[in-house]
Amino acid sequence: MAAHVLIVDSISANRILLKVKLAGAFVQVEQAASAGEALDLLQADLPDLLVLGGDLVDMSALTLCAKIKENPAFAHLPILLVHTDGSRADRIAALRAGADDAFEMSVTTDALLARIRSIMRARNSYEELRLREQAGRLPGLADAMQGFDRPAQVLIAGHSTATGQEWCRQLQRIVPYGLRSQPLPEIMRDMSQFSAPDAIVISLQTALPEDALRLLAEVRARATTREAAVLVVLDENNDSARVNALDLGANDVLSDGFDAEEAALRLDSMIARKRLADRLRKRVDDGLAAAVTDPLTGLFNRRYAMPHLSKMAQHADTQRADFAVMLADLDHFKRVNDRFGHAAGDMVLAEVARRMRRCLSQTDLIARMGGEEFLIVAQTDNAEDAAKIAERLCDAVRTEPVALRGRDIQIPVTVSIGVAMGSEMLKAKKNALPNCAKSHEAIASALIDRADQALYGAKAEGRDKVTLSLPAA
Amino acid sequence: MAAHVLIVDSISANRILLKVKLAGAFVQVEQAASAGEALDLLQADLPDLLVLGGDLVDMSALTLCAKIKENPAFAHLPILLVHTDGSRADRIAALRAGADDAFEMSVTTDALLARIRSIMRARNSYEELRLREQAGRLPGLADAMQGFDRPAQVLIAGHSTATGQEWCRQLQRIVPYGLRSQPLPEIMRDMSQFSAPDAIVISLQTALPEDALRLLAEVRARATTREAAVLVVLDENNDSARVNALDLGANDVLSDGFDAEEAALRLDSMIARKRLADRLRKRVDDGLAAAVTDPLTGLFNRRYAMPHLSKMAQHADTQRADFAVMLADLDHFKRVNDRFGHAAGDMVLAEVARRMRRCLSQTDLIARMGGEEFLIVAQTDNAEDAAKIAERLCDAVRTEPVALRGRDIQIPVTVSIGVAMGSEMLKAKKNALPNCAKSHEAIASALIDRADQALYGAKAEGRDKVTLSLPAA
Repeated sequence: MAAHVLIVDSISANRILLKVKLAGAFVQVEQAASAGEALDLLQADLPDLLVLGGDLVDMSALTLCAKIKENPAFAHLPILLVHTDGSRADRIAALRAGADDAFEMSVTTDALLARIRSIMRARNSYEELRLREQAGRLPGLADAMQGFDRPAQVLIAGHSTATGQEWCRQLQRIVPYGLRSQPLPEIMRDMSQFSAPDAIVISLQTALPEDALRLLAEVRARATTREAAVLVVLDENNDSARVNALDLGANDVLSDGFDAEEAALRLDSMIARKRLADRLRKRVDDGLAAAVTDPLTGLFNRRYAMPHLSKMAQHADTQRADFAVMLADLDHFKRVNDRFGHAAGDMVLAEVARRMRRCLSQTDLIARMGGEEFLIVAQTDNAEDAAKIAERLCDAVRTEPVALRGRDIQIPVTVSIGVAMGSEMLKAKKNALPNCAKSHEAIASALIDRADQALYGAKAEGRDKVTLSLPAA
Repeated sequence: MAAHVLIVDSISANRILLKVKLAGAFVQVEQAASAGEALDLLQADLPDLLVLGGDLVDMSALTLCAKIKENPAFAHLPILLVHTDGSRADRIAALRAGADDAFEMSVTTDALLARIRSIMRARNSYEELRLREQAGRLPGLADAMQGFDRPAQVLIAGHSTATGQEWCRQLQRIVPYGLRSQPLPEIMRDMSQFSAPDAIVISLQTALPEDALRLLAEVRARATTREAAVLVVLDENNDSARVNALDLGANDVLSDGFDAEEAALRLDSMIARKRLADRLRKRVDDGLAAAVTDPLTGLFNRRYAMPHLSKMAQHADTQRADFAVMLADLDHFKRVNDRFGHAAGDMVLAEVARRMRRCLSQTDLIARMGGEEFLIVAQTDNAEDAAKIAERLCDAVRTEPVALRGRDIQIPVTVSIGVAMGSEMLKAKKNALPNCAKSHEAIASALIDRADQALYGAKAEGRDKVTLSLPAA
């Protein structure tokens, strides 16, 4: 699908001029002759980009810009404001009103298209992340916008020590960020020592662009800096340097020397966007973690446990190591639920999970399989040690009754555990099944069955006991 | 952390030469004087990149390269092979052995560093994806490598129609890909019409690089092509064009004119890497979907349902619309489990879920809240219609007994449903709570409570019934 651009200006000659400039972008262009018409079109079908001329009959361009940005449904729509004949003050005002950038009508096609590419590139990355986050369909974006952040960290890469320090000094007064400067020639050596900055300001001297462009390429290539927002400062208006910087991954360009006020405005919106993306990324990761976590106990869930057990079987098979599979089941748990209610039952499960987790090493797995049943996979080479671990789990659960928070009730709990050793099935199956993933899944299931039979034995023998599965004769 | 590079060559002068070339990359360099030493170092600590000289005392560089690539633990380690004085045949042999690229010792620092940046960039993107996938800790990568793919689609962007067709013709004989060619000047216009290609081959004429570099920047900016693998073909060896192409996002460069055999080898590994990333991305998305899905019934789970219900409440509040909240609970489900076992119970739940889902429209929500309880949220403006929808659900469940697969058993099932209307709580709470997310969560909980009370009424009145919550007096 071609990107869809809405051009808004009340003077038709301006609209035509803009349309001609955009022709090289091969975008699909729609036009509106007034702010009112533009707002109607936005309601009907949100474009990918709004190009806003300076001449509107029914509203100033700045008012329209601000009006669009304050509507949550349109807030992410990129806006380029094009003044027929703009001054620095116009540009600052446009950025303040929420425009993503402001140009004069005389802007070259190359520069305009490169800026549009950079905006679209950022927008597409963001959209991909947003769709992924939505696929997890956890609560909406609103929450992701909240929360307290440490101040953003900005790194200034001036072409000389003096420049960097001067920029820092000027910015310091007007931005709430943590600033540090380091001259460009030095910065690459130390890059690996920084904690990932939120934004990097790179000074590009038109006469000597190599170092700056190379730093930009490095920033985009390195794991610690690839998500950083980059603002490139050109010492003079130069189209090819601007296009190059944007296409190499700069998020924004100050095209005619350093201007602290303008830099601050551009940094503000770059950093806001970067942090939104950071939060989305975190939510995606949280969503993924949720997929494998039992919400009540915080342990892994069955969905995680079974493939993990297969992998353990495979690992043990190739490394000729052994491991223990245990099924632990709370004794008479139904009575807890019946007598004290489900909320009490949940507290007991959470506390028992905590006690067992504490007994195990970091490399052991414990998962809640459902109801009051837990799976433990422990790395140990012999059945005696496995039995000792299981006894320790029984002791930890039995040691003292579970106290219900906010209620003066103490519930004594015990657990029965059935244990099977991995080698038991690995040996038995070795000849029957080839060394493939499928067979390790089968071994995992068989091990669960063996542990379950042993668990049944523990229950039959009076509960609060450990029983070992007997190797098949 | 600085990237960690291992240089392997038995001639110390070669190692020093390579180390000097890499100095500008500010990487941390380790050295090995033989293949054996290199393999030991790899075992101890995997570097980010291996730079392999052509002179080894104990093994040929090609053998070492192949040996490393066939070990799954090292398979993703990028390898650059640097011949003291290599031919085209040497380069082809290196690519065949699994090297990511091959150079001669005379390669300029700029070209070498640009290639390393492109390799590191790809590696970091892949690592981020892999870590994210691992965070979801679903079964390992092995499965992601399996599965049948449609043939990869490759788009050839020649600088002229004749060139593109000729390259296509030459490649056709040796690659299993779907190939199409289109001349560069035309391609941008149509880019939006392509289905996303797996790889794009772009011809760059050193005398006229603009169109090609612009296409490359566009490819990286557009949603449909940003993940495509890009191979740039230079008509003559030119360092600055090569550096530019790599830093603008090319994955690989053919630096001295088109060579079908070499192009095929490079495309093979680019496409394999791209598809691996595609699969990882899909697994991340599957993991996210799993976080909100009840595995037994395929319906949404409670984790998804509650925030969704809050959002419905908020939407209804601002739009002054209404909606119905229903809790449906299977009647005497415990008897099914006790009499026929848990497997039968699961089949009944899955079938009942299917029957109810079929009765509802796409915009209605149905989720399994746990056990045998389901939540339905339907968009409807009045209680009579809501009751009709609920009656339809009861009918659908009752209509015929559930037949157990593989067993000659028919289990009759009915469901009781309690219904509450959103407006009931929205009106009641309007004055008490401000219009914030928190209050809509409270409304969602309150609605569940009301529906639950109505459900209790339906159970008390003999089950297989719909009961409406009575608005508070």
